[in-house]
Amino acid sequence: MNFLRQAQGPGAIEPFDAVDVIRAKRDGEQVPHDALRWMIDAYTRGFVMDAQMSSFAMAVLLNGMSRDEIRVMTDAMIDSGERMSFDGLGKKTVDKHSTGGVGDKITLPLVPLVAAFGVAVPQLSGRGLGHTGGTLDKLESIAGWRAALSNDEMFAQLRDVGAAICAAGSGLAPADKKLYALRDVTGTVEAIPLIASSIMSKKIAEGTDALVLDVKFGSGAFMHDIDRARELARTMVELGTDSGVATTALLTDMDTPLGLAIGNANEVRESVEVLAGGGPADVVELTIALAREMLALAGQPDADVEAALVDGRAMDSWNALIRAQGGDPDAALPVPRETQTVVADRDGFVTRLEALPFGIAAWRLGAGRARAADPVIHAAGIDLHAKPGDRVVAGQPLFTLLADDPSRFDRALGALGGAWEIGDALPDGAAPGSLVRERITA
Amino acid sequence: MNFLRQAQGPGAIEPFDAVDVIRAKRDGEQVPHDALRWMIDAYTRGFVMDAQMSSFAMAVLLNGMSRDEIRVMTDAMIDSGERMSFDGLGKKTVDKHSTGGVGDKITLPLVPLVAAFGVAVPQLSGRGLGHTGGTLDKLESIAGWRAALSNDEMFAQLRDVGAAICAAGSGLAPADKKLYALRDVTGTVEAIPLIASSIMSKKIAEGTDALVLDVKFGSGAFMHDIDRARELARTMVELGTDSGVATTALLTDMDTPLGLAIGNANEVRESVEVLAGGGPADVVELTIALAREMLALAGQPDADVEAALVDGRAMDSWNALIRAQGGDPDAALPVPRETQTVVADRDGFVTRLEALPFGIAAWRLGAGRARAADPVIHAAGIDLHAKPGDRVVAGQPLFTLLADDPSRFDRALGALGGAWEIGDALPDGAAPGSLVRERITA
Repeated sequence: MNFLRQAQGPGAIEPFDAVDVIRAKRDGEQVPHDALRWMIDAYTRGFVMDAQMSSFAMAVLLNGMSRDEIRVMTDAMIDSGERMSFDGLGKKTVDKHSTGGVGDKITLPLVPLVAAFGVAVPQLSGRGLGHTGGTLDKLESIAGWRAALSNDEMFAQLRDVGAAICAAGSGLAPADKKLYALRDVTGTVEAIPLIASSIMSKKIAEGTDALVLDVKFGSGAFMHDIDRARELARTMVELGTDSGVATTALLTDMDTPLGLAIGNANEVRESVEVLAGGGPADVVELTIALAREMLALAGQPDADVEAALVDGRAMDSWNALIRAQGGDPDAALPVPRETQTVVADRDGFVTRLEALPFGIAAWRLGAGRARAADPVIHAAGIDLHAKPGDRVVAGQPLFTLLADDPSRFDRALGALGGAWEIGDALPDGAAPGSLVRERITA
Repeated sequence: MNFLRQAQGPGAIEPFDAVDVIRAKRDGEQVPHDALRWMIDAYTRGFVMDAQMSSFAMAVLLNGMSRDEIRVMTDAMIDSGERMSFDGLGKKTVDKHSTGGVGDKITLPLVPLVAAFGVAVPQLSGRGLGHTGGTLDKLESIAGWRAALSNDEMFAQLRDVGAAICAAGSGLAPADKKLYALRDVTGTVEAIPLIASSIMSKKIAEGTDALVLDVKFGSGAFMHDIDRARELARTMVELGTDSGVATTALLTDMDTPLGLAIGNANEVRESVEVLAGGGPADVVELTIALAREMLALAGQPDADVEAALVDGRAMDSWNALIRAQGGDPDAALPVPRETQTVVADRDGFVTRLEALPFGIAAWRLGAGRARAADPVIHAAGIDLHAKPGDRVVAGQPLFTLLADDPSRFDRALGALGGAWEIGDALPDGAAPGSLVRERITA
């Protein structure tokens, strides 16, 4: 059949045929580099059809891709748009990416903490969709804060304040934007080569010197098991390394929500507690672990990050960051109009409190959005009062639902059936261990 | 994620989500019957997108389908259109389908031969695309012959003449038409469950009592190796049996062209030779083998088909068939304006003469079409003068190219480089054996 298409060649202006590229991947062959580059470029131009890219994506999902193929595809996605550069800033740049979890507000304390050590943190973030929250939605709980920065504004802010948290411009890796939307409706989101190239194309195009990845696994994470999370982490670390971005990944547990706040305004509040030297132990632990990795990649392996949380340096950095983007760090955060508290029905220990249903419940309360165009309700969400391992007595508050519209409580509670458990004793070995299970480096 | 979609359910009017169906097949699960039926129906309605059906098709290609799934999908494709019925005809109906090969004109002598025994043969045929010719194109070499029959005309002709060879109406399995066009551009043609359901949905919707399949394998066939051909044959025999159509398949060799004529008018001429009791041995062998299978399924296992070829009964049946569709069986067939003969460059034996390049060469000469809308040149093609196993002397004609436009000769010869070989002796065991290698029954 290849023969026939070559025979038709003289009239064609495209150097490759999408069907040949699809077949090569389908049949377990290596796709030639120039053909793979062409496939991504031609898809971005609209020459390769959605239906062709989706069968290719399914073949990638089921047959995998080599390290070389992933690099070439990622390069092609980067080349579909602009590349930013922080050369001339005179500082090392380090970014962080999390694969997403319930209650994951770590970016908020982490970015100013790292910036407090003179490292520039160009943090391009997203908005939430479904049960996973978005950093920009959380920060927009702060009166006046704006997510949109021009490239020049971002550069100036990194120079003057050392950190910026903003929306990625549409100019970075437009091929990824188009491909991601397609994968979302064609059952091809879960392909590790496609996830890795999607995340890394934007981070590499952003021009950061170094990158720390928080790859989550567990019931509340995109990857349920640690083996898949490890494969994704390795793939991304290889891809960053091959592209000249010093990259480290941590595999972290996402079976239970991170911290005690799930939502937007309440997550900002919890982040500020961490920046003030307090906050829940798990949030502090992960913030410190990621800050150490970022600072190590920036040449400061011995930085005393705990001290910066306690002595106000991280809080000063946060205040400067929020003000630089128009926000008032001292303004009162929005509070919900309605609350409903669920209490323990017996004495015992919290043996289980699952991230995914709590994420879905917070989303149903208004903290997240079902469609990209929907608004979020900044005061909505859930405040936890107990976590797995905690001893509780009957009648003691377990968690409080926060909403503006009380009709949402029933829908939220509907998601929470069986999502937590109180037992007589903790199972052996159930004492909370470190969230960080593995560290993956080049 | 399933959870999220269920949560969005109240606003939806569709009972399933295409992404769930895709994921089930992708993850190696059985797709529930009602979901699979919905997928085909919703795709035909345009609710399921091309991009979704193509990733599903790739998942089917790589993960396969169970016998039950194939039956349910085929039923859904049949239900997308009308069902014909030959009840009331008072005769058994038997149809034949070939998976396509180079020089495969067997339908032409076979249909009138079988009809000569009082069995009705409702033969819905197609046109050629690429290097494989089409039965309707071949018959249109005959002055006045028309391929389009209404259902009523077909019924009347089957009653009066016992056979009809005509184009399938657009009302049969429209889901298959849409799905086939999609598979063609998305690298998903080769999935056995999809090939089987595509072929069988039309044959079952046509309402035939019995069906004989000629499943070809070899370099000139769609399936290159016999194992894949056997798998396809078994799948189709199971599907026919499960749907109440008595079905038998023969696996036949397609390494070298069938007969001596490749084209349109020249294939009609060769078919008429067979109907007159002559013709090339391989064409006669396959015609007889398929006729025996068809007649056995129609309750005449002992029919003397050779006699009907020799005594003129098959020829009478052919003449009646052609006249019934407006053709003049005595009219002169078109002859080419230009010919070019290739001769042997040495003494020896023809050790190889490959079907695929000869099919491509005939196509380039004008016998086939590159796009469905192109016309074919009825006089164009190739006449072979020697076949593998034949002894030749230097200067003896090997084959003659036939065309209306001499500029096509070079392009045709370009396809034939290395396509045949003359050796000192035939390899051991190279004496032509039976074309029919295996017989598959329920």
